[in-house]
Amino acid sequence: MKKVLIYSGGMDSTVLMYELKAQGHEVHALGIDYGQRHGKELGCAAGICNRLRVPFRIADLSGLRPLLAGSSQTDDSIPVPEGHYAAESMKATVVPNRNMIMLAMAAGYAMSIGAERVAYAAHAGDHAIYPDCRPEFADALDHAIGLADWRKVALERPFVHLAKAEIAALGYALNVPFGDTWSCYKGGSYHCGKCGTCVERREALGVQDPTKYSS
Amino acid sequence: MKKVLIYSGGMDSTVLMYELKAQGHEVHALGIDYGQRHGKELGCAAGICNRLRVPFRIADLSGLRPLLAGSSQTDDSIPVPEGHYAAESMKATVVPNRNMIMLAMAAGYAMSIGAERVAYAAHAGDHAIYPDCRPEFADALDHAIGLADWRKVALERPFVHLAKAEIAALGYALNVPFGDTWSCYKGGSYHCGKCGTCVERREALGVQDPTKYSS
Repeated sequence: MKKVLIYSGGMDSTVLMYELKAQGHEVHALGIDYGQRHGKELGCAAGICNRLRVPFRIADLSGLRPLLAGSSQTDDSIPVPEGHYAAESMKATVVPNRNMIMLAMAAGYAMSIGAERVAYAAHAGDHAIYPDCRPEFADALDHAIGLADWRKVALERPFVHLAKAEIAALGYALNVPFGDTWSCYKGGSYHCGKCGTCVERREALGVQDPTKYSS
Repeated sequence: MKKVLIYSGGMDSTVLMYELKAQGHEVHALGIDYGQRHGKELGCAAGICNRLRVPFRIADLSGLRPLLAGSSQTDDSIPVPEGHYAAESMKATVVPNRNMIMLAMAAGYAMSIGAERVAYAAHAGDHAIYPDCRPEFADALDHAIGLADWRKVALERPFVHLAKAEIAALGYALNVPFGDTWSCYKGGSYHCGKCGTCVERREALGVQDPTKYSS
């Protein structure tokens, strides 16, 4: 089946790409540049797609940066929170309505290339924190997308019941090159090892983790 | 109430702006540049906002142009259909998932400035043709937007049961300067008078129409 995969170059969406390819699907990867601090993730994404011969396009939403204020991912004046994810520090990393904007874009891309599905790597650990990572939101948006066009497109979130460690285990089984993926919110030479995503990544990848951390 | 108005500089959204202002709301206008053929509409939009002292921001989605292929509004190689709107010629003017992308953006902007509503000028004439102008779609998306964030934002489409001629009548009553609004899909010095939007505009504005048409 022809599927658009929302692809960040991080560990979760890379595992999903390897799984979709292993299942024999025609994958079209879509990176979203919504004015992040750094282009490190998208560079990793391009490298993995090149290796797997998956077409990779980037939706350039960087023009939205001045509009979507109030987030540490798009506003350099707000420091990246460190330590484990917690509701308050997570709120500082939210781009308003980020997931709906990404999914609306990806659905438009799917309609334009005749793909039937938009797959993305939302997982169980996301639910409690971001409202737009919860299954109720995804179900509601899936319903809206199905009504948006003559060509029916459906959302697919196969990892929604998996914890991050389970995604890591699946990735190890699929020989995902985790050392070539990128999670850190900061744009250094190595993963910082301290920000919320680094802490979660480390815990999930465990003893086999090939990532280089700067601390 | 603080409201974001999706504002194109066309006749429908200009009438809605005048109505919201007359009702005493705090209006924040949001133009969407998604790689249209011309900037004429947005120039008219800026002029009207300046006159009414309404803050006007533009969401720059022009970076999406290469992705959203297959539409005469974003692909210069496809001619603009002429004559009355009909399902087939309308399909040629559709940007895939355009309305969801616009509304997702506008909801994100509303969340970032603390507005409670996103108003837009969908009207009765739109329903039959574009799937994403139908009330079922808008209801489904409204539901999804309400689940997307801690700050509840709702969609508002007060013209959804009005025909374009009724919107024109409301605008005349509110002294809307229709001669300073822009509808034409082509970017000439004057409205072309032939494309789908010009034909509808002419019929709706009737004998008092102050618009200059080139034919």
